[in-house]
Amino acid sequence: MSDKLKAALVMGSDSDFPVLKRSIRLLKAFGVETEVHVISAHRTPYQAEEFASKAESAGIGVIIAAAGKAAHLAGVIASYTILPVIGLPVKSSTMDGLDSLLSMVQMPKGIPVATVAIDGAENAALLAVQILSLSCKELKEKLREYRMDMAEEVVEKDRLIREEAEKL
Amino acid sequence: MSDKLKAALVMGSDSDFPVLKRSIRLLKAFGVETEVHVISAHRTPYQAEEFASKAESAGIGVIIAAAGKAAHLAGVIASYTILPVIGLPVKSSTMDGLDSLLSMVQMPKGIPVATVAIDGAENAALLAVQILSLSCKELKEKLREYRMDMAEEVVEKDRLIREEAEKL
Amino acid sequence: MSDKLKAALVMGSDSDFPVLKRSIRLLKAFGVETEVHVISAHRTPYQAEEFASKAESAGIGVIIAAAGKAAHLAGVIASYTILPVIGLPVKSSTMDGLDSLLSMVQMPKGIPVATVAIDGAENAALLAVQILSLSCKELKEKLREYRMDMAEEVVEKDRLIREEAEKL
Amino acid sequence: MSDKLKAALVMGSDSDFPVLKRSIRLLKAFGVETEVHVISAHRTPYQAEEFASKAESAGIGVIIAAAGKAAHLAGVIASYTILPVIGLPVKSSTMDGLDSLLSMVQMPKGIPVATVAIDGAENAALLAVQILSLSCKELKEKLREYRMDMAEEVVEKDRLIREEAEKL
Amino acid sequence: MSDKLKAALVMGSDSDFPVLKRSIRLLKAFGVETEVHVISAHRTPYQAEEFASKAESAGIGVIIAAAGKAAHLAGVIASYTILPVIGLPVKSSTMDGLDSLLSMVQMPKGIPVATVAIDGAENAALLAVQILSLSCKELKEKLREYRMDMAEEVVEKDRLIREEAEKL
Amino acid sequence: MSDKLKAALVMGSDSDFPVLKRSIRLLKAFGVETEVHVISAHRTPYQAEEFASKAESAGIGVIIAAAGKAAHLAGVIASYTILPVIGLPVKSSTMDGLDSLLSMVQMPKGIPVATVAIDGAENAALLAVQILSLSCKELKEKLREYRMDMAEEVVEKDRLIREEAEKL
Amino acid sequence: MSDKLKAALVMGSDSDFPVLKRSIRLLKAFGVETEVHVISAHRTPYQAEEFASKAESAGIGVIIAAAGKAAHLAGVIASYTILPVIGLPVKSSTMDGLDSLLSMVQMPKGIPVATVAIDGAENAALLAVQILSLSCKELKEKLREYRMDMAEEVVEKDRLIREEAEKL
Amino acid sequence: MSDKLKAALVMGSDSDFPVLKRSIRLLKAFGVETEVHVISAHRTPYQAEEFASKAESAGIGVIIAAAGKAAHLAGVIASYTILPVIGLPVKSSTMDGLDSLLSMVQMPKGIPVATVAIDGAENAALLAVQILSLSCKELKEKLREYRMDMAEEVVEKDRLIREEAEKL
Repeated sequence: MSDKLKAALVMGSDSDFPVLKRSIRLLKAFGVETEVHVISAHRTPYQAEEFASKAESAGIGVIIAAAGKAAHLAGVIASYTILPVIGLPVKSSTMDGLDSLLSMVQMPKGIPVATVAIDGAENAALLAVQILSLSCKELKEKLREYRMDMAEEVVEKDRLIREEAEKL
Repeated sequence: MSDKLKAALVMGSDSDFPVLKRSIRLLKAFGVETEVHVISAHRTPYQAEEFASKAESAGIGVIIAAAGKAAHLAGVIASYTILPVIGLPVKSSTMDGLDSLLSMVQMPKGIPVATVAIDGAENAALLAVQILSLSCKELKEKLREYRMDMAEEVVEKDRLIREEAEKL
Repeated sequence: MSDKLKAALVMGSDSDFPVLKRSIRLLKAFGVETEVHVISAHRTPYQAEEFASKAESAGIGVIIAAAGKAAHLAGVIASYTILPVIGLPVKSSTMDGLDSLLSMVQMPKGIPVATVAIDGAENAALLAVQILSLSCKELKEKLREYRMDMAEEVVEKDRLIREEAEKL
Repeated sequence: MSDKLKAALVMGSDSDFPVLKRSIRLLKAFGVETEVHVISAHRTPYQAEEFASKAESAGIGVIIAAAGKAAHLAGVIASYTILPVIGLPVKSSTMDGLDSLLSMVQMPKGIPVATVAIDGAENAALLAVQILSLSCKELKEKLREYRMDMAEEVVEKDRLIREEAEKL
Repeated sequence: MSDKLKAALVMGSDSDFPVLKRSIRLLKAFGVETEVHVISAHRTPYQAEEFASKAESAGIGVIIAAAGKAAHLAGVIASYTILPVIGLPVKSSTMDGLDSLLSMVQMPKGIPVATVAIDGAENAALLAVQILSLSCKELKEKLREYRMDMAEEVVEKDRLIREEAEKL
Repeated sequence: MSDKLKAALVMGSDSDFPVLKRSIRLLKAFGVETEVHVISAHRTPYQAEEFASKAESAGIGVIIAAAGKAAHLAGVIASYTILPVIGLPVKSSTMDGLDSLLSMVQMPKGIPVATVAIDGAENAALLAVQILSLSCKELKEKLREYRMDMAEEVVEKDRLIREEAEKL
Repeated sequence: MSDKLKAALVMGSDSDFPVLKRSIRLLKAFGVETEVHVISAHRTPYQAEEFASKAESAGIGVIIAAAGKAAHLAGVIASYTILPVIGLPVKSSTMDGLDSLLSMVQMPKGIPVATVAIDGAENAALLAVQILSLSCKELKEKLREYRMDMAEEVVEKDRLIREEAEKL
Repeated sequence: MSDKLKAALVMGSDSDFPVLKRSIRLLKAFGVETEVHVISAHRTPYQAEEFASKAESAGIGVIIAAAGKAAHLAGVIASYTILPVIGLPVKSSTMDGLDSLLSMVQMPKGIPVATVAIDGAENAALLAVQILSLSCKELKEKLREYRMDMAEEVVEKDRLIREEAEKL
C-alpha cells in the first residue's frame, strides 16, 4: 500500500473556508498532498456520494469534513467510504458550535466520525497526519519535530512571561 | 393533484419503533395511508437516496423521519426530495435528546426539516395530517373533530381534578 | 380546494422583522402571496386569536410565526387554527436562541409547531413553499429549479475554493 | 380592597397534578381559599382566556400556573390578566425541565411571569401566600410561624445528623 | 394595611445599575415610591441581613434583587424577610446569564424567589406593580392602561411593518 | 499557629448526608477532627452567620459546604469567614447538578468558593486534608501514602482487567 | 512498516470496562491484536507516561482511551505519543457525559484527540480499524464486509418492521 | 513548617496571561511570593511533571493553574503533587468557558482541583491566600482588612448609586 496517500478536505459551505484554511496550510507544511472541496451534504447530496464513494480509489487516505449548525457532512461522507473521516465542527452564528459538535460526534453505531474541537482546524490536520504517518516514516519524523518545536515554543514563552510577571 | 397522498414514516433504527408507533396509529386513525421504513442515513445511504428520490412519484405527500443521537436521517431524506419532511428527534441513552433535536432542527439554509418535540410522535403525525389536509377537505373535518375531542377531554379532566383537589 | 393559498408571516415584535424579511423575500420570489403581521402572543392576545381563528377562511394555507425568548407566538397561533404553523425561533440578546427554540419545538401532544433552525428564515419560507406545493404544480417546478440553482451555486463555489486552496 | 383574595391553581395537564397537589395542600394549610383548574393553553385556548380574563372579578388575587415542556400556560394566562401569575415549571420526560423553565421565565417585556424552581410546588404556594399577605395581617403571622417552624426543623435535624455523624 | 407600600431595588454590584435603571424608571412612572441599594450578599452580608430584616417595618412591600454570576442576593434577602422577593438575573461576561438564572430560580423548598427573565428589568418592575396593586386600586388602573398602551403600540407597529413588508 | 485544625462539614439539608458521609469517613480515616452541621443558608440564615463567623475561633481550619439546587450555602458561609470554604455541589432531582455547580463555582470577585465535582465527596475531603497538611507534616505523610495506595489499587485493577480482557 | 499494528485500549477506571468491552470484542472480531490497560491519568500519571511514550515502539498503531467526568486520559496519553489517540467519552453518574465529551474533544491546538460519541464503544473500535486498514488490505476487506452486513441487517429490520407496522 | 510558602501560578498558554495577571497582582499586594510559569499539559508534559513533582520541595504551598478549552492543566499538575491545586477555568473562543469549567471541576475521585469561577482570577488568588493564611497570622490580618475594604467600597457605591437613582 502506498505511503503517499492524500488528505481530502471538504467543507459544507465556503463560509467554512477561513477555518479550514488553517488545516490546509498545516497539511501542506507537512508535505501532505491535499484535495479541497465545497460539498454540501444537503444541497449537493449526489456530489457528496460521488466524492466519498470514489475517495479511496482516488488515492485519498483520510478525509477532513468541516461543517456548522446541523453538521451532517462528516457523517454523510463517512457513510459512503471506509476511510477514516475527521469531523471539524465549525462555530456558526448561534449555539456557539454545540450544535455542530453534537451533530458530528454523536454518530450512531457503525459509522464513526473522528471529531476534533470546535474550530480546531490545526488539530484536524494533525490528526490526519498522525493517521497517514502510520504508513509513512517521513511523516513520523516530521510529527516528532513538530512536537519538539511546539515544546520549545512553550518553553520560550515560559521564559518571556516569567520576565513579564516579575515586573507586575 | 391527488387528495389521497400517503404519509411515509422512516426510522433510523428499529429501536425508534416504539416511539414511531404512536405516529402510525394516529395517522391510521385519521385514515391516512402510511408507508413505514427502517432506513439508516449512515448504514444504508443508498436506500435513503432511493427511497427519498422516488417518494414523490410513489404518491407520498409528506415524510416523517425519526432518529436519535446525531439524527441526520431527516436532513438526508430532505436533501433528495422536495416533499416536506417532518423531523422527529428521539431521546437516546445520553444527552436527553438534545443531540437529536439540534441535529435535526439546525439545518442549513436551503433544506428545511419541520422539527417537532423530542419523542413528540403524535405531533409529528398531526403535523403530517395538517399538511395533507390543505388538499383534502375530509382531513380538515377530522382535524376539527380531533381538536374538539381534545378540548372536551381537557374539560372533563378539569372537572375530575377539581373534585379531587377539593378533597385535599 | 384552491391552489393559490397565501402564506401568512407573523412576528412577535418588530425587532424580529430583519430576520423575517428574508422569509418574505423568498416567498415573493416563489410567487407566493404573503400577509405580514406584528402580533404579540402576550401583549395582543385578542389579535392573536382573531388572526389565527380566521386565517383559514382568509385564504391562508400556512403560517410562519417568528419570535424570540419565551417564544409562545407559534404555539398560541397554532392553538386557534388547524393550518400548519411553522415556528421560526429568533436569537435574542441572551441564551443564544436556545430559549426560543425550546419554547417553540417542545409543544405538548395535540398542537404541533413545525420548527426550523434558530434564525432560519429562508428555511421557514422554503418549508411553507413545500407545504403549499402539494396542491400546486407550479410551486413544485419552482422548488426543483431552486434546488438545482443551489446545487450549481455550490458546484461553482467548489471550483472557486479549489483554486484558492491551491494557492495556499 | 378585600383581604380574602383566593389563589387559583391551573395546570396544563392532569399529569401535573401530583406536583401541584403539594402547592394546594400548603395553601390550604395557610387557610387560603383555592380554586383548581386543568386548562391547556393549546388544547383549550378559549377556556384559558375565559378563566384568566375573569379571574380578577372572581375574587382571585394570584394565579399559579404549572406546566411542562413548552410551558406556555403561565404566559398565556398572564396575557389576559393583570393579576400576578406564578409560573411553576414541571419536569417532563426529556430535557430535565430546562425547556419548561426557559419557556416560563424568559417572558418578553410587558408580561412578567414570577417563576419558581422546577417542580418547586411548595415555593409556588409560599410565594402566593407572601403576595396575598401584603393585604392580610393573618397570613403574615402564619408566614412568620412557618419560617420559625422550618428553622426549628433544621435545628432539630442538625442535632440528629451530628449524632449520626459521630458514629461514622 | 397601607396601600402605599414602597418597592425596594437591590443590586449585587453597581455594574448591575444600567439594567436595574429600567426597573426604577418604570416603577417611578407607575408612581411607586422606590428605595435603591447596592448590597452584596457576599461582600456585605451584614448589610444584607440589616436591610432585609427591617424591610417590612420600613414600609417596603416588595423587593427586586438583581445580581449576576452565582446570584445569591435574591435568596439571601429572601431568607431574612417574608416579603415577596423578585429575582432579576443579570447576564454577566460568561455563561450568558444561565448561571444567574439557575442560582436565583432553583431555590430550595421554603424560601421562594419570584424570578423573571435574564436582564428582564421591566418585567421585574411590572411584577412588583402587579403585587402592590392587589392592595391599591390606583395601580390596577394604571396597569390596565399600560396594557392597553402596549397593545396599541403593537397594533401601530403592525400597521407600519405591513407597509414595509409590501415594499419588499 | 496550631497544626491540629478541625474540618467542619456543613450540609444544606439532611438529604445531602448520604453524599457528605463519604467526606466525613475519609477525613476521619486521615485522623482529622470533624464537626458536622445541618445549616440551611435560607431557612436558618442566623445559624449560618453564627457558625461561620465563629468557625475560626472554634479551631476550624477549613469548611466543606454541601448543597443542591440553588446551592448558596458555601457562598453564604464564605461571606462570614476568611477560612477557605470548599463547595460540594450535590445532584438534586432535576438539572443533573448543573444548577448546584454553577451556583457554587461562579462566585463574584472577593469571596471564593473552592468547588469540587458534583457529588465529589471524597475529593472535598482530600482537598481539606491537602489544605490542612500545609501546617501538619503528619497529614502530608498520610496524603503520600494515600496516593501510593490509590496508584497500587489502579495497578492491581490493571492486572485483573487485562486478564479479563484476554478472555473476551 | 508493519501491517500488523496492535490497538491498545486504555480505561481510566475499571468501571469503564463494561463500555470498553464492546470495543475489545469488535476489534478481536476484526482480527486486530489488542492490549488492554487500566491507567488513570491522575492516580497513575507515571504509568500513563510510561505506557504512552513506549506505545509506538511496542508495536501499537492506535490507542483508544475511555474515561468519564473530567476525562483527561485521552489528552494525557496523546501528549506522550504521536500515535493517533481515539477518545471514548463515558457517561458517568451526572452531566450525562457532556463533561466527558467536552474534556476530550476540546483539546488545545497541537495535540488532537479523535473523539467518538458518548459511550460509542463500537465506533471507537471501528475508527481504530479504519485507521489501521490504511496499511492493511485485509482489514479493508473486512470493513467492506462489515458495512455490507450492517446494511443487510437494516434491510432485514426494514422488512420486519414494515410487517409489524401493517398490523397496527 | 514555614509560614512563608510561595504561590505558583501556571498557565496553559500565554494567551491566558491577561487573566492570570490579575491573580499575580493580587497575590503580590498580599505580600505572597509568586512563581509564574507557562506550562502546557499537552505540549510540554515533561515540564508539567518536573514542575509539579518538585513544587513542594521548592517552597511552594499552593498552585494556581489557569487553562481554557479541555483544561487538563490543573488536573495534570495535581496528579504529581499533594499540594492544593486551584483551577482557574479560562473562557476561550467557543462554549463560553463551560468546557474549561467542566474539564477542571469534574475531577475523578482521588485527585481534587479547587475550582473557582470562569475567569475568576482574583478569587483564585484570594483562595490561595486563604489557604496560606492558615499558617500565617499576617496573611489572616491582611485578609480581614481586605474584606473590610471591600465592604466599605460596596457601602460607598451604595451611597453613590442611591443618589444617582433619585435623579432618574
